[in-house]
Amino acid sequence: MSLPRSATIREVGPRDGFQNEREVIATADKVRLIDMLARTGLSRLEVTSFVRGAVIPQLADAEEVLLRIDVPDGVSLSVLLPNEAGLERALRVRERFHEVNCFLSASETHNLHNVRRTVEESLSGLERVIPRARDEGLRVEAVISTSFGCPYEGVVSPQRVFAIARRLVGAGAQEIGFGDTTGMANPVAVGRFFEAARAALGGAVELTAHFHNTRGVGLANVVAALAAGCTSFESSFGELGGCPVPPGATGNVATEDLVGMLDEMGIETGVSLRGVIAAAAAARAVLGRPLGSHMLTAGPIEWHPAA
Amino acid sequence: MSLPRSATIREVGPRDGFQNEREVIATADKVRLIDMLARTGLSRLEVTSFVRGAVIPQLADAEEVLLRIDVPDGVSLSVLLPNEAGLERALRVRERFHEVNCFLSASETHNLHNVRRTVEESLSGLERVIPRARDEGLRVEAVISTSFGCPYEGVVSPQRVFAIARRLVGAGAQEIGFGDTTGMANPVAVGRFFEAARAALGGAVELTAHFHNTRGVGLANVVAALAAGCTSFESSFGELGGCPVPPGATGNVATEDLVGMLDEMGIETGVSLRGVIAAAAAARAVLGRPLGSHMLTAGPIEWHPAA
Repeated sequence: MSLPRSATIREVGPRDGFQNEREVIATADKVRLIDMLARTGLSRLEVTSFVRGAVIPQLADAEEVLLRIDVPDGVSLSVLLPNEAGLERALRVRERFHEVNCFLSASETHNLHNVRRTVEESLSGLERVIPRARDEGLRVEAVISTSFGCPYEGVVSPQRVFAIARRLVGAGAQEIGFGDTTGMANPVAVGRFFEAARAALGGAVELTAHFHNTRGVGLANVVAALAAGCTSFESSFGELGGCPVPPGATGNVATEDLVGMLDEMGIETGVSLRGVIAAAAAARAVLGRPLGSHMLTAGPIEWHPAA
Repeated sequence: MSLPRSATIREVGPRDGFQNEREVIATADKVRLIDMLARTGLSRLEVTSFVRGAVIPQLADAEEVLLRIDVPDGVSLSVLLPNEAGLERALRVRERFHEVNCFLSASETHNLHNVRRTVEESLSGLERVIPRARDEGLRVEAVISTSFGCPYEGVVSPQRVFAIARRLVGAGAQEIGFGDTTGMANPVAVGRFFEAARAALGGAVELTAHFHNTRGVGLANVVAALAAGCTSFESSFGELGGCPVPPGATGNVATEDLVGMLDEMGIETGVSLRGVIAAAAAARAVLGRPLGSHMLTAGPIEWHPAA
């Protein structure tokens, strides 16, 4: 395996993770956890969503979170935009963040279930949202969910995913995230996918892997993506979040498990493993339940001379 | 990555898994779980240990388990031999199993802590046990613990591991298992290790990977081992077992997570994923606690046309 020397990690826990928690987390706790994450060396954080509060009450405090957090210079903050209305709302606190995320599903059925639009309707909306965000000086990432399989349709053709990606790049997206929304990816498929993605989409756009650990294969998929030249990953501290289907399934790859593995592999991330573990421990205390993260339980690799 | 077309899995849960459970499991439950595992397509099962009952009360029923289980022809059963006394005891029920396992640690300190012998003392003992087992027509696997790192000494030199392996092969071992006892391996180290192991030990002996999922990297290490030509793996249904250090840490790679990943990668194992999940679910019911396995929660990858 030929592997890159460094990789970048975008932390999605404060949005993707918190969104999937049943109990509403106090804004002060969100602020404290984001402020901790922002001091771990993570250079990009997705901190909230401008979805309507009636749809996701957990993230109804988007403006307040953005106004209260205190992050060091150089940490880039992103917010999720579900639609054009979300962009309008976000722009009223434009000075508090640096990037936006938008999303759709590669599979028609998943997109209909998730946002009640056809893929074409979502794309048309994004072709209005993305240029406006770019005009505001915002960096734009578009995430394509179910890129590695759909719980309704099964196999999703990579060529279909790349065609959607080209539309998004054409609209101005600077980064495309490929989401394994329900944990259907495997290392063989991932390796082929990222090799083909680089060929199909070229070097002008950042290609990012967003893996879930639903079936325990998240970090194995990271290794396959690295071997295929992908150096950009999204993950969630504490293994929070992810699609809660099937019920009880674990979420995104845990940031601390990812950082720990990359550290040991000699791939630089600039992220402090102990810092992320501390943030995950703080999240566990706030949520009051065990989390799926392995590093949070096991701790970093270390050794002690026997007594 | 170049990957093999098939891989073999040796199930170690009934020994390595049960051994680490605090509550003594009823012999009838052990028998029922082993009988289930023996009907999943797993062709090799490690079913018990001839360690003294005073040392590990959980496995004090070794003879009874062997006499009561009912496994199909073609399933090879192995027992763990901690020492020569264990071999003597095992030979009294010689007709009930097909293979033996023995073990030592690559690191001096871990071996002293684990079995109160120096590595040289362990090797001398094994050089008496292994030929006797071979004379009895038993297949012999020797497992080298802490092959990828030691919680007391840190880095363990692969050359030291290979030198120990050569002694064991010289004594008659037909298979060497390399154990990542406390989850210190990573995909880069694993890839280099198995490439070097094949060069150092040649093709006359089976080389087997025994990974733990302590820090979530177990299946990523499997992918790296596969890419380095390793096709033999040990795992434990339900993610049972493993070294309970640090406290709360998860155990061996879960057999059902391993089978699920290999299935999706197109690597044949001959093992029924649903069968192993059913056995893990039965173990969870017996143990009365959540298990670390992902597949047990998430279930196999499947999709359903939307209603």
